[in-house]
Amino acid sequence: MNKFAISALLFTSILYSQSNDQQMLKNIYSLSLTNSKCYPWLDDLSNKIGSRMSGSVGAEKGVAYVKAQLETLGLDKVYLQEVMVPKWVRGEKETAYFFDNKTKVSIPICALGGSIATSKNGLTAEVIEVHSLKELETLGIDKVKGKIVFYNRPFEAANIDAFKSYGGCVDQRYSGAEKAAKMGAVATIVRSMGFRLDDFPHTGAQSYGDLPRDKYIPTAAISTNAAELLSKKLKENKGLKFFMKLSCENLGEVLSYNVIGEITGSEHPEKIMIVGGHLDSWDLADGSHDDGAGVVQSMEVLELFKKLNYKPKNTIRAVLFMNEEFGGRGGRKYEELSKQNKENHIFALESDAGGFSPRGFSFECNATNFQKVTNWKYLFEPYLIHQFFIGHTGSDIEHLTSAKIVKAGLIPDSQRYFDYHHAANDTFDAVNKRELELGAATMASLMYLFDQYGID
Amino acid sequence: MNKFAISALLFTSILYSQSNDQQMLKNIYSLSLTNSKCYPWLDDLSNKIGSRMSGSVGAEKGVAYVKAQLETLGLDKVYLQEVMVPKWVRGEKETAYFFDNKTKVSIPICALGGSIATSKNGLTAEVIEVHSLKELETLGIDKVKGKIVFYNRPFEAANIDAFKSYGGCVDQRYSGAEKAAKMGAVATIVRSMGFRLDDFPHTGAQSYGDLPRDKYIPTAAISTNAAELLSKKLKENKGLKFFMKLSCENLGEVLSYNVIGEITGSEHPEKIMIVGGHLDSWDLADGSHDDGAGVVQSMEVLELFKKLNYKPKNTIRAVLFMNEEFGGRGGRKYEELSKQNKENHIFALESDAGGFSPRGFSFECNATNFQKVTNWKYLFEPYLIHQFFIGHTGSDIEHLTSAKIVKAGLIPDSQRYFDYHHAANDTFDAVNKRELELGAATMASLMYLFDQYGID
Repeated sequence: MNKFAISALLFTSILYSQSNDQQMLKNIYSLSLTNSKCYPWLDDLSNKIGSRMSGSVGAEKGVAYVKAQLETLGLDKVYLQEVMVPKWVRGEKETAYFFDNKTKVSIPICALGGSIATSKNGLTAEVIEVHSLKELETLGIDKVKGKIVFYNRPFEAANIDAFKSYGGCVDQRYSGAEKAAKMGAVATIVRSMGFRLDDFPHTGAQSYGDLPRDKYIPTAAISTNAAELLSKKLKENKGLKFFMKLSCENLGEVLSYNVIGEITGSEHPEKIMIVGGHLDSWDLADGSHDDGAGVVQSMEVLELFKKLNYKPKNTIRAVLFMNEEFGGRGGRKYEELSKQNKENHIFALESDAGGFSPRGFSFECNATNFQKVTNWKYLFEPYLIHQFFIGHTGSDIEHLTSAKIVKAGLIPDSQRYFDYHHAANDTFDAVNKRELELGAATMASLMYLFDQYGID
Repeated sequence: MNKFAISALLFTSILYSQSNDQQMLKNIYSLSLTNSKCYPWLDDLSNKIGSRMSGSVGAEKGVAYVKAQLETLGLDKVYLQEVMVPKWVRGEKETAYFFDNKTKVSIPICALGGSIATSKNGLTAEVIEVHSLKELETLGIDKVKGKIVFYNRPFEAANIDAFKSYGGCVDQRYSGAEKAAKMGAVATIVRSMGFRLDDFPHTGAQSYGDLPRDKYIPTAAISTNAAELLSKKLKENKGLKFFMKLSCENLGEVLSYNVIGEITGSEHPEKIMIVGGHLDSWDLADGSHDDGAGVVQSMEVLELFKKLNYKPKNTIRAVLFMNEEFGGRGGRKYEELSKQNKENHIFALESDAGGFSPRGFSFECNATNFQKVTNWKYLFEPYLIHQFFIGHTGSDIEHLTSAKIVKAGLIPDSQRYFDYHHAANDTFDAVNKRELELGAATMASLMYLFDQYGID
């Protein structure tokens, strides 16, 4: 064959695979939008099972449901991975109030995950408002001792990416109690993590850090409207007394599970690609966006491949992680067992940023692989997928590290996410069917491309 | 000056204007997200005024409100443009039902805009289901005469752009009655225009075309759930009798207004750039997405320029058009007067696709101007604006034509739009503050760039 013919053949073959890939993506998106299961799965998970807090009955029902559904897909393997998770219960609904002159003002409040309770009769104290952990430190112990510390730094509205605003505020929630306890505070309350002014308190993880157990103090979130009001009233009356009552309790550890479904690779069964989300939610709602969406989208990737009769070269696993919200035990356990079994993970994709219109992917990978992905951008253009950047991918896949692995996170439109995140309104009706399905198709498309072309 | 120095100067000047533009866009977006009026304006328009059907009291209140708000902005001119609009009223809430064996099944139904009423006692007839105007024709008069024609072609779910699916179905709503009347049908019902299966009937414009007035037949939309159910029941019982009662009425024409606010150009006052949306809505809801969003975003463009102390070179007008939904009289009147006054419009931008996360713009312009716009893409990238394409821009600016004008339409994410479009749930709570504000900033940015660099 002459040079000319080789070039022509090469060119034809590139064109052929391009048009093959274009056709495959078209098939994936069309099938997802017309005949996929992710939306009815989410309906079941949200409306039949409901909240799936680690260690709760709901979480166990979620495990059973997801396993049973995976078993209907004709996969090569479906199995559970045992993992011990911390169990924390909210107890009675929390109450909080203060008096504005003689009018009692009730405050929407919820304990943060892992918080201890107040005494049975609640706790009353003066409030000191701060806007950062640093500001608290500079105040000095005298001004903090015996008080409730109120963290009230709002989300930075000028950021385009809502997660950047979350990142800029969440230290108040995560470490606020630890820092305040060290300075003699009796409790902390934090402005809920979100842009919107509304009446939903948003829970979330917090850590007492290295505090000895007898120094723990109760910690809770109040709604953004309540934070605005309290701040205003504190300006009028510095001596304002705030009452709060939490009944939550840490109940040790219980057995739970990661759920895994697998299509074994036809050419490289030893090379593993995973797609996942987390099966646990907070207890205040069914967690349809966080992360019911990621769970059903990950399952949908396998369903789409089966329905399209696509036989992956590499082993493809959907991993539904337990306990992302309150300890991250599922992710760690998966990684631990993967090391034990000397598994070779080449790719991991997580969806844990809501079921909104997909916009792209974040990546953790080397420059060569990022270039490879960038070359695929044109394939995603018809589906309005346009963001490809290096950044955080997912907490559940955080622990999976190797020199060669490529990790990715689905990036949906972020504007509405913190209207629902960890709050009582994170429910099924907040998820749009098509946006969810487009997300699943976008994930399946990236899985397909990495399966076809490998990583470098 | 030597060649080298000239190149260096030119390069510096390009860099300087690039960084100027980048800074201006940053200022626009930051201000819009932190201190803009569009969201409280929409709150007023939606919750204090409510629906603004052409010719209604609500529409006149909308005119007065928008004019008053524009007058607070320190513009150079604020004025009204008289326009005669058709007035149509829905009358009593519509009813429809059929009997499934002996069980009465109520059907969510609403008259289409401009429909005549049924008789006072309603109308009962057998139903013939079709999926296109063409299918109706091929049936022949015998099968249609005396019946209610039921148009039931659903939205094509595989399309990525929701407007494409709308475009593929809306002939059933717009021309369905005309075509069916010509074949002797007594009424028509149409499946609501939307992907989602729910219980909201969606109204919208329809036309009897060239039918003589005494041949008009009543025409209405039923919810998507009802359409699915009716179709199923018709398969079981072809003789099923459907009852419907409409009380709507055409009441001739009344005087209304376009509202215009203007910043006069500092260098080229005779060159006019407009930004607009339509002030009228349907009567079933307050039309927060369609098109309250476009109205307040257009007003916001002027507010942002004033607050940023930006003095446009060209004259910039916000035009809030009347009667887009039901006749398009405002757009036509604006164009007519613009011709009479020999005005020179160089640019027109419309927002009439909902207040969702902005994704880009459609353009109607020549290739040179489109290339110009494409060169600005990088400026929009930080704001996740990525769609720039040639396509339909807006119905209100449709009539503005000249060889040179550039027209643009804001393109928000389309997935949720038809969940609300022309239905009772198109209300304020369906609009996210940040998505609305990002849209306004995106519009202001494009207006700024065309004002700076003109059109070719």
